[in-house]
Amino acid sequence: MAKKSYVLGIDFGTLSGRALLVDLSDGSEAASEVHVYEQGVITSRLPGSKTRLEPDTALQDPRDYLEVLRRTVPRVLARAKIAPSQVKGLGVDFTASSPMACYACGTPLCFDRKWSGRPHAWVKLWKHHAAQPEADFINEMGLLRNERFITAYGGRYSSEWFFSKLLQVVNDDPEIYDACERWIEAGDWVVWQLTGRETRSVCGAGYKAMWVYPYGNGWAYPSPGFFHALHPKLSNVFDKLCMNLQPLAASAGGLSREGARLTGLKEGTPVAAGLIDAHAAVPATTVVTPGKMVLIMGTSTCNMILGDDFRPVEGMCGAVRDGIVPGYWGYEAGQAAVGDILAWYVEKGAPADWKRKADKAGMDLHQYLSFHAAEKKVGEGGLLALDWWNGNRSVLMDSTLSGCLFGLTLSTEPPDIYRALVEATAFGQRRIMEAFEAQGMAAQEIFACGGLAGKNEFLMQVYADVLGRAISVAATDQPGALGSAIYAAVAAGIYPDLRTAAGKMARIRERHFEPNGAHHERYDLLYTEYLRLHDIFGRHAVPTMRQLRQLRQGH
Amino acid sequence: MAKKSYVLGIDFGTLSGRALLVDLSDGSEAASEVHVYEQGVITSRLPGSKTRLEPDTALQDPRDYLEVLRRTVPRVLARAKIAPSQVKGLGVDFTASSPMACYACGTPLCFDRKWSGRPHAWVKLWKHHAAQPEADFINEMGLLRNERFITAYGGRYSSEWFFSKLLQVVNDDPEIYDACERWIEAGDWVVWQLTGRETRSVCGAGYKAMWVYPYGNGWAYPSPGFFHALHPKLSNVFDKLCMNLQPLAASAGGLSREGARLTGLKEGTPVAAGLIDAHAAVPATTVVTPGKMVLIMGTSTCNMILGDDFRPVEGMCGAVRDGIVPGYWGYEAGQAAVGDILAWYVEKGAPADWKRKADKAGMDLHQYLSFHAAEKKVGEGGLLALDWWNGNRSVLMDSTLSGCLFGLTLSTEPPDIYRALVEATAFGQRRIMEAFEAQGMAAQEIFACGGLAGKNEFLMQVYADVLGRAISVAATDQPGALGSAIYAAVAAGIYPDLRTAAGKMARIRERHFEPNGAHHERYDLLYTEYLRLHDIFGRHAVPTMRQLRQLRQGH
Repeated sequence: MAKKSYVLGIDFGTLSGRALLVDLSDGSEAASEVHVYEQGVITSRLPGSKTRLEPDTALQDPRDYLEVLRRTVPRVLARAKIAPSQVKGLGVDFTASSPMACYACGTPLCFDRKWSGRPHAWVKLWKHHAAQPEADFINEMGLLRNERFITAYGGRYSSEWFFSKLLQVVNDDPEIYDACERWIEAGDWVVWQLTGRETRSVCGAGYKAMWVYPYGNGWAYPSPGFFHALHPKLSNVFDKLCMNLQPLAASAGGLSREGARLTGLKEGTPVAAGLIDAHAAVPATTVVTPGKMVLIMGTSTCNMILGDDFRPVEGMCGAVRDGIVPGYWGYEAGQAAVGDILAWYVEKGAPADWKRKADKAGMDLHQYLSFHAAEKKVGEGGLLALDWWNGNRSVLMDSTLSGCLFGLTLSTEPPDIYRALVEATAFGQRRIMEAFEAQGMAAQEIFACGGLAGKNEFLMQVYADVLGRAISVAATDQPGALGSAIYAAVAAGIYPDLRTAAGKMARIRERHFEPNGAHHERYDLLYTEYLRLHDIFGRHAVPTMRQLRQLRQGH
Repeated sequence: MAKKSYVLGIDFGTLSGRALLVDLSDGSEAASEVHVYEQGVITSRLPGSKTRLEPDTALQDPRDYLEVLRRTVPRVLARAKIAPSQVKGLGVDFTASSPMACYACGTPLCFDRKWSGRPHAWVKLWKHHAAQPEADFINEMGLLRNERFITAYGGRYSSEWFFSKLLQVVNDDPEIYDACERWIEAGDWVVWQLTGRETRSVCGAGYKAMWVYPYGNGWAYPSPGFFHALHPKLSNVFDKLCMNLQPLAASAGGLSREGARLTGLKEGTPVAAGLIDAHAAVPATTVVTPGKMVLIMGTSTCNMILGDDFRPVEGMCGAVRDGIVPGYWGYEAGQAAVGDILAWYVEKGAPADWKRKADKAGMDLHQYLSFHAAEKKVGEGGLLALDWWNGNRSVLMDSTLSGCLFGLTLSTEPPDIYRALVEATAFGQRRIMEAFEAQGMAAQEIFACGGLAGKNEFLMQVYADVLGRAISVAATDQPGALGSAIYAAVAAGIYPDLRTAAGKMARIRERHFEPNGAHHERYDLLYTEYLRLHDIFGRHAVPTMRQLRQLRQGH
């Protein structure tokens, strides 16, 4: 019997990186290893420094990424007892946008003692939120100049993204900007370290860096005039990018000698173009064609759906041709907080005696509150929430919005509130799907993956009931890493295309969630009220939220 | 040196009764004794019976009231080491409306074995809420016939009140109605037991039993035609009342031989006409003239203010000529939940780790949350609440309203919420005062009493800041009992009138609460938002609350 063949997916998250070894024949997961970043998220002081960082700063150390490669890859091979030659390809996905400043040779500026004491020399993690003034200015100029990226991003470029962060460097530390020879997504940088060859992925460029298809005028990025308008120093920004854009599921190159030494894999092993984690998850849920909405559900929820053409969907935060599956437009939308709201409630709102009772029942509080919430009828708790604890990322696209809870009485119990919060996130999700539906992109089927989808059955049933559609759940608990492996299988030439690869390697669970018709009907009534409040507060017909925010900020 | 003289105030609450012995010369409190009712509040089964009671039933056993007299009065005399002859008068106040069915001799029907197994033979405590359909019908007929009590009660007669409860007896157990020879407030019944003479107090009649001044047509109560319209059986309702109405601060008679035996006091000791507890509290805070708003602050807040004439104040729940201080109109308004909302939050909303930290600091959670809430600036928490956890009792007069919380984010902390709830009740209070102000009855000064006023300094300071006025706090912790003693001092002829008696016997604390001008200005901004949401949701421009309530009730 011939030896089995594998691909490796390497998923870089906020706090750790993970290698997943996947059987090429059926997608079964042979072994997995995690390495937790030593520096984690750098928010208060740079490593080895006493200087306090500014508020909203969130940096990382690229050494941690190299350590992930060095530690996890050899271990998964050892654990699965396979030889390096059995690994036919390698894919990388990264939480984005997390850009960094490098020299042209690929060395990060923060590795250079000359710059290592300067915050802007380090990786700016996706959740670095200090570039809001820069993002506001980019949006203002983008709208003024009618730049195409404004439309592609549904009207708003985020402070979390590639050029907002670069403009912050220009404004706050121009010397770093001048010294920076390459401004690159950390995911693309990892691929560079593996292959020895600088490339940029269409996924990162399209969703985070204003790269718009089609580019008839020769500029996929905005014109130099736009960048000059942002800041005269940005006139030379194209020198710091790299025009070697790699389509997805293509090979970015073979593993270099250095890359082979780092990972213990064979030199020349094909490495796929870098991916964003959420986008990699799409084929991992079996989805490679339009009409299927993918929900990646965790602390927040990311919506992904494929389309045949460009449609101006209200509140979508990115539409990129070939950005997920080559040949289709990949749409992204999402909710800024889902699991985070429930975690907030469990941490800040569930009273001591419920914690005790949960402990006694041997359940965590989420399970215990879900258990009791599930016993209630739809509407019985008399509560309704607006799910904007972290603003609204889709449809309203307004980070200044905040959460609300309506219908509280002296007899309101903790499971009523927990249930209302779950329902509010489901209503928020329904609103997003209706925005796609209004543009002729109805989700015929729904596929979920991520932490919440895998572990909170009560929540999944509420979603099915609110949405009125069945929800399938990905078999994998590692959709990003599995997705990277699937892309790698195509990049390595094992499968001819993503459809074939996903058909072989991605699976959904037997357990799926069917909507209850009676519940759905009652939820229609609650959703009507949700929509009413959504529009009143979300579109600031009632200016209370803005006023509260101004007061909070001391104005 | 002559022996000192005293008066006794006896305060009947929801769970216990208290006797307070007060020095006539200066109001100092010589001794106090509490007796906790043996039957407490009867909600599930009658004493000695296995039959389950209907939901929303709240009954009491009059034997408990007699036990209060029997036990507490001799004990306070013994504790203060004074002779019965030193007690110059006696006053009684009662939580109302708590009516009961008696024979003409004063024996409660529930003392008769023939009826003791029937719920309607027992005292219906104020919080008996099963007569809502009857109250609705009374309001419908009252409006249709344009009865004067509708105006006197600010548009709505409550399910908690005297005739709503009687109509429930007629509807649910007509035999009890037929057997009932007297339908009487428990407070008036206690006075009857003490004096051997049936009277009714203007306070109970005016605030709870539709008695309206002036009564040019010969009927202070509504006409027999109105009662007949409510139910033909009620045609004989006047046979069951008693037309011997006693003005306040008048003597209802001397202590009977039986009353003297029961209490150990001297026969003939003057007994004042019965009072409602909240109304008794007004002179106990030193207030006996218009322009001074009294807040009795506990689980809920009761507003009392005196006026020279009748004004249709929005949302006031009773305006009675001579109803508090003879010669003035006494106005009542209030908030359905204040301390109850904070207690709800501490019990159902404050998380386990805050409970632990409070324990460690040796504080109860109210103190601990207040301590941290007080450290924040006005508006810093970014939250705003509508204080309708138990509906709205004034201005909007709508028990179907419910509480809301706006402005929640992932960084919202428990003290932010606690503070927002305190502020919301202060905003609700400000709205009530503005309703009086709009009718030319501005509160020049504010006087507070009751549990919250005495123990939550943070809350009192927020109230002063929100209201923009200084707040004085009554020295006594027993405003009802002290008030009863003050009325008794006048009834006994010791002082010529309430003003003189209160001037001698009532005091305020040195510690009072001055508004901070800068805080008041910022609260004006928050209050603007409160008012906006108050009107949008409270007047059902946005019908969400009604819809939520209907869904909760399964419609």
